[in-house]
Amino acid sequence: MKSNLSGTSIIGRGRGRKNSNTFRAVDPCDGEQIEPAFFSADLEELNRAAVQASDARVKFGKLAREPKAKFLRKIAENIEAWGNELIDRASLETALPAARIESERGRTCFQLRMFADLVENGSWVEARIDLPDASRLPVPKPDLRSMLVPLGPVAVFCASNFPLAYSVAGGDTASALAAGCPVIVNAHPAHPGTAELVGLAVADAVRACDLSEGVFSLLFSKDYEIGQALVRHPEIKAVGFTGSRTGGRALMDIAAARPEPIAVYAEMSSINPTFILPSALAERSDEIAAGLHGSFTTGGGQFCTKPGLVILPESPRVREFAERMAELTKETAKATLLTPGIKENYEKGLRKRARRLAATYNGNKPEERSVNAVLFNSSAQKFLQTPDLADEIFGPTTLLITANTRAELLDVARSLEGQLTAAIFGSAEDLDNYADLIAILETKVGRIIFNGFSPGVEVGHAIVHGGAYPATSDSRSTSVGTRAITRFTRLVCYQGFPQRVLPDELKDDNPAGIWRMVDGEFTKGNV
Amino acid sequence: MKSNLSGTSIIGRGRGRKNSNTFRAVDPCDGEQIEPAFFSADLEELNRAAVQASDARVKFGKLAREPKAKFLRKIAENIEAWGNELIDRASLETALPAARIESERGRTCFQLRMFADLVENGSWVEARIDLPDASRLPVPKPDLRSMLVPLGPVAVFCASNFPLAYSVAGGDTASALAAGCPVIVNAHPAHPGTAELVGLAVADAVRACDLSEGVFSLLFSKDYEIGQALVRHPEIKAVGFTGSRTGGRALMDIAAARPEPIAVYAEMSSINPTFILPSALAERSDEIAAGLHGSFTTGGGQFCTKPGLVILPESPRVREFAERMAELTKETAKATLLTPGIKENYEKGLRKRARRLAATYNGNKPEERSVNAVLFNSSAQKFLQTPDLADEIFGPTTLLITANTRAELLDVARSLEGQLTAAIFGSAEDLDNYADLIAILETKVGRIIFNGFSPGVEVGHAIVHGGAYPATSDSRSTSVGTRAITRFTRLVCYQGFPQRVLPDELKDDNPAGIWRMVDGEFTKGNV
Repeated sequence: MKSNLSGTSIIGRGRGRKNSNTFRAVDPCDGEQIEPAFFSADLEELNRAAVQASDARVKFGKLAREPKAKFLRKIAENIEAWGNELIDRASLETALPAARIESERGRTCFQLRMFADLVENGSWVEARIDLPDASRLPVPKPDLRSMLVPLGPVAVFCASNFPLAYSVAGGDTASALAAGCPVIVNAHPAHPGTAELVGLAVADAVRACDLSEGVFSLLFSKDYEIGQALVRHPEIKAVGFTGSRTGGRALMDIAAARPEPIAVYAEMSSINPTFILPSALAERSDEIAAGLHGSFTTGGGQFCTKPGLVILPESPRVREFAERMAELTKETAKATLLTPGIKENYEKGLRKRARRLAATYNGNKPEERSVNAVLFNSSAQKFLQTPDLADEIFGPTTLLITANTRAELLDVARSLEGQLTAAIFGSAEDLDNYADLIAILETKVGRIIFNGFSPGVEVGHAIVHGGAYPATSDSRSTSVGTRAITRFTRLVCYQGFPQRVLPDELKDDNPAGIWRMVDGEFTKGNV
Repeated sequence: MKSNLSGTSIIGRGRGRKNSNTFRAVDPCDGEQIEPAFFSADLEELNRAAVQASDARVKFGKLAREPKAKFLRKIAENIEAWGNELIDRASLETALPAARIESERGRTCFQLRMFADLVENGSWVEARIDLPDASRLPVPKPDLRSMLVPLGPVAVFCASNFPLAYSVAGGDTASALAAGCPVIVNAHPAHPGTAELVGLAVADAVRACDLSEGVFSLLFSKDYEIGQALVRHPEIKAVGFTGSRTGGRALMDIAAARPEPIAVYAEMSSINPTFILPSALAERSDEIAAGLHGSFTTGGGQFCTKPGLVILPESPRVREFAERMAELTKETAKATLLTPGIKENYEKGLRKRARRLAATYNGNKPEERSVNAVLFNSSAQKFLQTPDLADEIFGPTTLLITANTRAELLDVARSLEGQLTAAIFGSAEDLDNYADLIAILETKVGRIIFNGFSPGVEVGHAIVHGGAYPATSDSRSTSVGTRAITRFTRLVCYQGFPQRVLPDELKDDNPAGIWRMVDGEFTKGNV
């Protein structure tokens, strides 16, 4: 792979044109533009990528397990092969420290290899066989066999806050490719250099594994036009998106208005309510304060699982806890946010919240690139009367509210929209007493955490990174972990097919050696 | 249960008001109104049903496996307990013969009991456990456990063509209740008496099983207003619908435009292409003609899986086959369609198709209640040039087209929208030669049938009654079989929870005795 950034989109084996519609990344630390120029894709290039993806659909969708796993692993190897060039560029474009980018690269490659293992194992297709019965009355029972198949070409939108793990070869791309879907990535304009490097890593893997060129394309664009046209394109069959509520909803609306509506998996907005019960404060107030502070300020508070709302039942320790939180917040090092736009929205959000709470907020000086962490305090009563206190503010800020009664605490839980996570700090006995709180959270939250903070999403089989709207557009799904693969699939059933025409996964002798449901029972055996 | 129809909606334990907004069922055989009057629900009644459903949500969602299974079985018993009263009323309202209604009742009760068994078995929740590892570096691995939970109150719209199996206690209702979701049914105005009888059967089961009244309501309405308001209601979290493409898309659009968009499972429009290859015609032309004729005329051709398009590669037997089909069609007994509206649309569709094909179609006399079966013939070329020849015509008609080349046949397959089913008649060798046809069908069809006709949907574990849009609104799902339950669920993950607070399905000792994925491997054992 050549390391000189060209700034042009990757359209299968080719590249986009150099045109006058250019943009550059911006260094968030000084506001200066970073070379080189990037060239926005045009509609002809987008269409070329989409047609190539469609052409690649069937062959890639039927790729055997081993070569597909090899392809995913090759992408991971290629990403690692960039070495520090990738780390440096990502760090430059996002102001995230090199150590953070390195750990994110680790997660990205781990995800790719996890999906390689999953694909190689093969049981993920949820194969089911209902055996025939010719003697059944009044009519014979047919032979029915079904499994998941790829949904078709997928559009992936990169996240601002995960330049690697939720961008060009991040979780959405990895799970879509693992499912057997060609992918067209819409690069995030804030880190196009990172996108090009990772895009070259994927494109090289496509070549090295001798796959159809339409399996992967990467489009640059400085505004929304290309991304929206991508979601509208008739060859695109699903969308993965990580970003703002406004952006995600716009894509959902476009997808729903298509002649053929398609699935959008948007991970958008969450304030991740954290309930700290009196027993927890009584036992380990300082420990929880330190943890909470770390949790809402780490990475500049730019995690989707940042605890943005903390609910404290009134107790003798609440005042002390709030004071400790205030101290810690005051001592927090300034953070450089990912983009000037995010910094601007952070300031706007803080000013609005301060107005709502009649609190003092002086703001950061406009010429300053980095921002202070900010803590707000209020009551559950005020929170319940002021709907926009529940709005997400992306950045290092959180809101502590005190609930005077148990009923108030439950009302706050009931008032919340869908959330990626919720956390409860307390004793095991507390959980018995707050079964009704858990029951409320179960109706809207993807992951409920006991005595732990949310950032740090574990990538595995049981994780759920989802939640009711607006945490995600589709609460039935998770965007992290092995379960994410099913987002890009649908079911096909084969009735009365001869053995040799069936996919391996559905043949009597189970040559794939996978787990299947046969007449209602799970087995790895033959039929 | 009292058998006198009152004509009022069932709102939990209460009934709707008698108002002036009435309608009556119509006997399709003579166009006469059938007593009694039915009273359209108003918005206050709808809201009452929705609030009750929301109130019932948590308790019903956590109902243990045995009482939930008992409830589903009690519904089936109650339906059977109506005896001939239900059969007679359904037959009167739909013009479907008693024998057909009886077999549909059998299917309806079978579905309810199948979901009872599924719920009792418990493995359907897809439980997963990733065990913790305190010694993992750089950070300890948390304890993560996830499973499917109910999505919340579901709105179900009854189908015109399945007064029992896809209506008040049909597949959508059975799977939603099995998932733990309260259900509000919007009765079909063509068979309100059938709806009231089945509604009373469900309401009685709610009482007998001592469940919250909000678990089930049934709303009557003569126009679209109440149904649309139901989909808009903030307490409704998913929709099940079986009906026309126009109706389904209208509900999809309403659901997508809500402040909180929700999932719509609409099963809409399909012409179920049937490919009859030369080897099949050479061997058993008459047998296939008889089967195809039965398949497109049975039940007045009012099945969603009716073969509405038959593709024949040019061969010596094609003319003979078409002539045999024409004879059989001419001999077909007249059919009384389900409603005057369906008859009108059937006539409209036939006239339009005849114009497109420059064919003769005299139509049925307006005063006649029953209609003739109609066969159209054309070429693949004409079909490809005339997009609306692919429109579904609900009723006893089909279109035979001849493909002059293999390429034409594949082009027809490529040109098709999403389909519930496709069928291929031929030899096993043909399937090898037509692997590309199967690959095309796999991108859009829910069930591919080899040497069989589609009506007769088997209810089991492996069945898929789905397909890309417009066959359904959500190609990732099936509305028939045990897999239908997952439509009304979402995932919740519990992190670091003490054993005794976890749902039984996720506890170490597996008291539910279900299949679970533990650290990536399926097991029925303990942890």
